[in-house]
Amino acid sequence: MGKKDLLYEGKAKRVYLTDDENIVWIEYKNSATAYNGEKKAEIVGKGRLNNEITSLLFSKLAEKGIQSHFIKKVSEIEQLVKRVNIIPLEVIVRNYAAGSFSKRLGIEEGQKLKYPLVEFCLKNDDLGDPLITDDQIDVLDLASPEEVLVLKEKAREINSVLSDFFKEIDVRLIDFKLEFGKDETGKILLADEVSPDTCRLWDIHTNEKLDKDVFRRDLGNLTNAYKTILGRLGGPTHV
Amino acid sequence: MGKKDLLYEGKAKRVYLTDDENIVWIEYKNSATAYNGEKKAEIVGKGRLNNEITSLLFSKLAEKGIQSHFIKKVSEIEQLVKRVNIIPLEVIVRNYAAGSFSKRLGIEEGQKLKYPLVEFCLKNDDLGDPLITDDQIDVLDLASPEEVLVLKEKAREINSVLSDFFKEIDVRLIDFKLEFGKDETGKILLADEVSPDTCRLWDIHTNEKLDKDVFRRDLGNLTNAYKTILGRLGGPTHV
Repeated sequence: MGKKDLLYEGKAKRVYLTDDENIVWIEYKNSATAYNGEKKAEIVGKGRLNNEITSLLFSKLAEKGIQSHFIKKVSEIEQLVKRVNIIPLEVIVRNYAAGSFSKRLGIEEGQKLKYPLVEFCLKNDDLGDPLITDDQIDVLDLASPEEVLVLKEKAREINSVLSDFFKEIDVRLIDFKLEFGKDETGKILLADEVSPDTCRLWDIHTNEKLDKDVFRRDLGNLTNAYKTILGRLGGPTHV
Repeated sequence: MGKKDLLYEGKAKRVYLTDDENIVWIEYKNSATAYNGEKKAEIVGKGRLNNEITSLLFSKLAEKGIQSHFIKKVSEIEQLVKRVNIIPLEVIVRNYAAGSFSKRLGIEEGQKLKYPLVEFCLKNDDLGDPLITDDQIDVLDLASPEEVLVLKEKAREINSVLSDFFKEIDVRLIDFKLEFGKDETGKILLADEVSPDTCRLWDIHTNEKLDKDVFRRDLGNLTNAYKTILGRLGGPTHV
């Protein structure tokens, strides 16, 4: 399978066509961005760490019956995935208050929520990915009410599996962002990535932040934090 | 019934105690505020116009079986209402895209929605009254899921009645904000006001704005716009 033309370049990844129209080739970049692109940096090793962590987590999710676009890792910074049409919604799951949730609603960071919350944001950089309600999603024809229910169910199931994974390695899954897409048959698959770029991960004992907040808030060395996660997950940390 | 101590002063109204612990005395102020209090002015006649319009609309709603806190108008700028505990949610109904909805989600103003949308915002000036989802309301214990359903049903019913009222006077009800409260028995009643301060009202033929957007966006004379509404509703426009 060969890497063909660049199809799309995002903030954290490049997507290339392949010989198979239903498969694309993903390359993880070293770019770090935050606050809707206002804060930017190049961090050597970040692409590799996110590719390793995402490949590992997508494989673990598949073992638990959760299908994603992931096919296989093809290099330290690349993976092959099924080509999907991304649903233009960020699906956010929150177990503890943090980040924009805390700021918008005035709730202290780290407060455990009485149950995991699933929220949607409109995936639109120009608008800053605004929060969107289920009815707004329907009225704007972004997804049907049935699809919204499927997304919520999948998000809750993924949260349950991921929370257990992370708990086993002494990490608390605070919140995370998922994206989903439809394959050529219309089936909804988990897509994008699951990494410390898209999850808030706190050490279960010390509450040390092991995720992109290290970059967002200038808390220290991002690659060290990501290496901690990859190492605890049993991945190769020589990188 | 006498006016006693000031209980609360808001941006647009003062609330006084009366001899009856279950009844309060509302005085409408001439203050106009917008953008969460960033823009302010005193506009002579505004309090009177909003009191007249709200009294008239609450009476019309009561005729249609929709109960509110309204008891009676006692002067040009005052009314007696049942004392309620305000539920800390702004209930917003949208028939057409406008205002924050258009801005946040990138939808052109004036576009008719495929059905009336009901949204909730957390009533909190310090946080800028942020949009809040049904699940967030539950997780933060602001209202129960059952209460949220009641609020939505009431909001849709009020929208249906108000849209008809306004259509009869050649006005299009674009969107509006409601507040609800619980009386001493726990019954949920429509509260606050229904006026051009809280509704977007456009002339059905010319799309002329006859609401607080005249002030927000410096489109002309606010009292003339409010007088047009009061006049068309059959109220006293000598003021």
